[in-house]
Amino acid sequence: MSNQKPSLPKGTRDFGPGQMIKRNFILNTIKRTFEKFGYMPLETPSMENLSVLTGKYGDEGDQLLYKILNSGDYLSKTTVKDYEQGAKALLHKISGKGLRYDLTVPFARYVAMNRHQITFPFKRYQIQPVWRADRPQKGRYREFYQCDADVVGTGSLICEAEIVLMIQETFQKLGIREFTIKMNHRKILSGLVEVLGEKDEGAFAVAIDKLDKIGLEKVLQELEEKGFSKRSLNILTSILSLQVGSAEKLTTLQNRLKDSEHGRKGIAELEKVLRYLKTFGIEAPVMFDLTLARGLSYYTGAIFEVKVNNVNIGSVSGGGRYDNLTGMFGLPDVSGVGFSFGVDRIYDVMEELNLFPEENMVSTQVMITNFDAETEAYALRVLSQLRAKNINSEIYPDQAKLKKQLNYADKKSIPYVLVIGPEEVKSGNLTVKNMRTGSQDTLDLNAVMELVK
Amino acid sequence: MSNQKPSLPKGTRDFGPGQMIKRNFILNTIKRTFEKFGYMPLETPSMENLSVLTGKYGDEGDQLLYKILNSGDYLSKTTVKDYEQGAKALLHKISGKGLRYDLTVPFARYVAMNRHQITFPFKRYQIQPVWRADRPQKGRYREFYQCDADVVGTGSLICEAEIVLMIQETFQKLGIREFTIKMNHRKILSGLVEVLGEKDEGAFAVAIDKLDKIGLEKVLQELEEKGFSKRSLNILTSILSLQVGSAEKLTTLQNRLKDSEHGRKGIAELEKVLRYLKTFGIEAPVMFDLTLARGLSYYTGAIFEVKVNNVNIGSVSGGGRYDNLTGMFGLPDVSGVGFSFGVDRIYDVMEELNLFPEENMVSTQVMITNFDAETEAYALRVLSQLRAKNINSEIYPDQAKLKKQLNYADKKSIPYVLVIGPEEVKSGNLTVKNMRTGSQDTLDLNAVMELVK
Repeated sequence: MSNQKPSLPKGTRDFGPGQMIKRNFILNTIKRTFEKFGYMPLETPSMENLSVLTGKYGDEGDQLLYKILNSGDYLSKTTVKDYEQGAKALLHKISGKGLRYDLTVPFARYVAMNRHQITFPFKRYQIQPVWRADRPQKGRYREFYQCDADVVGTGSLICEAEIVLMIQETFQKLGIREFTIKMNHRKILSGLVEVLGEKDEGAFAVAIDKLDKIGLEKVLQELEEKGFSKRSLNILTSILSLQVGSAEKLTTLQNRLKDSEHGRKGIAELEKVLRYLKTFGIEAPVMFDLTLARGLSYYTGAIFEVKVNNVNIGSVSGGGRYDNLTGMFGLPDVSGVGFSFGVDRIYDVMEELNLFPEENMVSTQVMITNFDAETEAYALRVLSQLRAKNINSEIYPDQAKLKKQLNYADKKSIPYVLVIGPEEVKSGNLTVKNMRTGSQDTLDLNAVMELVK
Repeated sequence: MSNQKPSLPKGTRDFGPGQMIKRNFILNTIKRTFEKFGYMPLETPSMENLSVLTGKYGDEGDQLLYKILNSGDYLSKTTVKDYEQGAKALLHKISGKGLRYDLTVPFARYVAMNRHQITFPFKRYQIQPVWRADRPQKGRYREFYQCDADVVGTGSLICEAEIVLMIQETFQKLGIREFTIKMNHRKILSGLVEVLGEKDEGAFAVAIDKLDKIGLEKVLQELEEKGFSKRSLNILTSILSLQVGSAEKLTTLQNRLKDSEHGRKGIAELEKVLRYLKTFGIEAPVMFDLTLARGLSYYTGAIFEVKVNNVNIGSVSGGGRYDNLTGMFGLPDVSGVGFSFGVDRIYDVMEELNLFPEENMVSTQVMITNFDAETEAYALRVLSQLRAKNINSEIYPDQAKLKKQLNYADKKSIPYVLVIGPEEVKSGNLTVKNMRTGSQDTLDLNAVMELVK
């Protein structure tokens, strides 16, 4: 064991107690919501066979996969020739496993592998870290948690409506009041391209998705370069300039898209989702946004994305419906819909808006002081009684100066300190110090337990 | 995306909803105990620099570390010569990171790196997976969770006593009634070797640790082969054959070890831990066991291990005190004590003893049926009201046959199904089916909410 100055790998983080308590507040709120809506927990291994991961995220994704060296003599199945052919050719001879890149592909793999045991519709949630060998930068890490919920084996649009409800419930519990759920439908996008008489749906989605960032003019320019006709650009301009509510926008589009089966279906589905929300009796800040496209190629139905108003951070949640997620593993035609929360961004939003509730950020509720053998023995008996009432409590383990002990409690954000000296042992009353206000009281143990609960 | 039959890497597991609910019951119980005793959560990255991991677990441990290939062209810093020198020489040029092997070394790394921010004594718990490239076999996996709690920066034996309390509390909450906490002290072992006039403390610990498995005779034989004298073996035989309680054993040993400072200290410390337990007013099944040695080389004080009585499975918890854990990262003389729970084994014990409480293994409490547009709309409003009362509930998303819907609820272990047909819509009363007993009742919504809560 050499003496060394240790460091963390680039793009990774420790989460100390202060951060963990806040992160757990977010994660537990999300879990609680998922479970309230009937989603059940799933965990898959961190490592997957490379054959499961490769080719699922595009060429760039394959580059960003973390590969694990085979154990033992990993070169045993290689020759100098393999080495000389370069990293790519050598790879599959020295590495058979990688770290998961997201939770979607492992979920699809799980469903395909367990198709005969699973009762469909299958509602699962999954909260685990994923790894990407990305260039680290502000807000982008090489290891981060994803929180996904998906239901597969049903085309019911109740699921879409419930996703809106889950987003609303989670944000309400977290105290995030002002947010917008943007919604669109992949079939509306393809229907629009169809009635414009254009072909390049991919280019259209990519361009329109950037409207927020680069403005209408540049979007039109990009489409022109991609070969979109003057007429198409004019129609688009008129649609995108509509300054009306979501329902009116849908009605206008309905008219435009009436000759496209895709388009009609997309609009009908979005309208049905909105009707379901009304039936649930819940007002949600849902906004139809024709410019929402979302990058992931597997979406085929409704898509959505959530932004927190007046906070300059990307989307904090998003998702959509897909027709054939498990097809890549030999189980075709399983429709499903899923969404996820971005924990790191939600954390940053809550810090920025100062939303973490102080009273929930406490781990230990009471600390008892420790001065000498006699008071220590008394303190241990008090401690037992506090814990018997399920009050998180601890004794300062060493016999130290009061100032040092109070400093410990303060640093640990412990709200109450019981000071037990010879006086207290004699009288049976305890001195309680409120660490937030600095005030002190003399109370018996029952009153203390009432106070701190 | 090719069509393929997916599989899991050897030694890894998916945890489906049924298992997850049980595992979460165990993990939440453990977390709750840690927090009740003032331990705070910490998470460290899955990947650590290899310089942090290598050399900490012995040669065998180094072999079992999972190494991650550098991203991009991982061969760019290598030459054919490096390749020709073999896997070991090539390794550090193509891999700089590994997956964590346990939670102890990352914890020591964290403490050393954050020594100026941490307020000592520092009580942390950590529940995360670890990875070992071990040969998979029954009960041994390549990815598994560890649950550790450690306090560093204090030599107080209150901490040892509280570990006993935490073990007791956890097992009581889990319903594991009969277990034994074996305790020993490294300084008693070294004191004994000292008074015997022997030298090879390591061989002694290795041999004596096997008493349970191979019996006294073979232990003595092994020690003889290691050069232990006849006299030593006779004294050992008399000590190990003592059939008395823990307190008497300690008294007998006290006499034997009176000339060893180490021995005296070890005995005094164990006695003090037992006295603390008495002061806490808690009866715990603690047993002094001179043959307990525990393999990990960093222990220097009290050590302990927990077995469940009458279940043929290894230890389910264990730990000990160390003097210098963070020394490997340049922060010497930080005493601490820690322990961990073996989740996989506890899971197996609870399955074997049938201890998972049925009422806690439920995820969704109520499912509502779905027959047609009219009853569906009614059902969605009922669903909203159930959820407003924080009752986990869901609607069957599709309009399907009752039998199919009931089968879904049954497979998901949902205890109550609300059947809402045209009758129910008209009357406003709901038909509640108890899925465990099969009985049906007609109740209004308030009565339903009372029933299922």
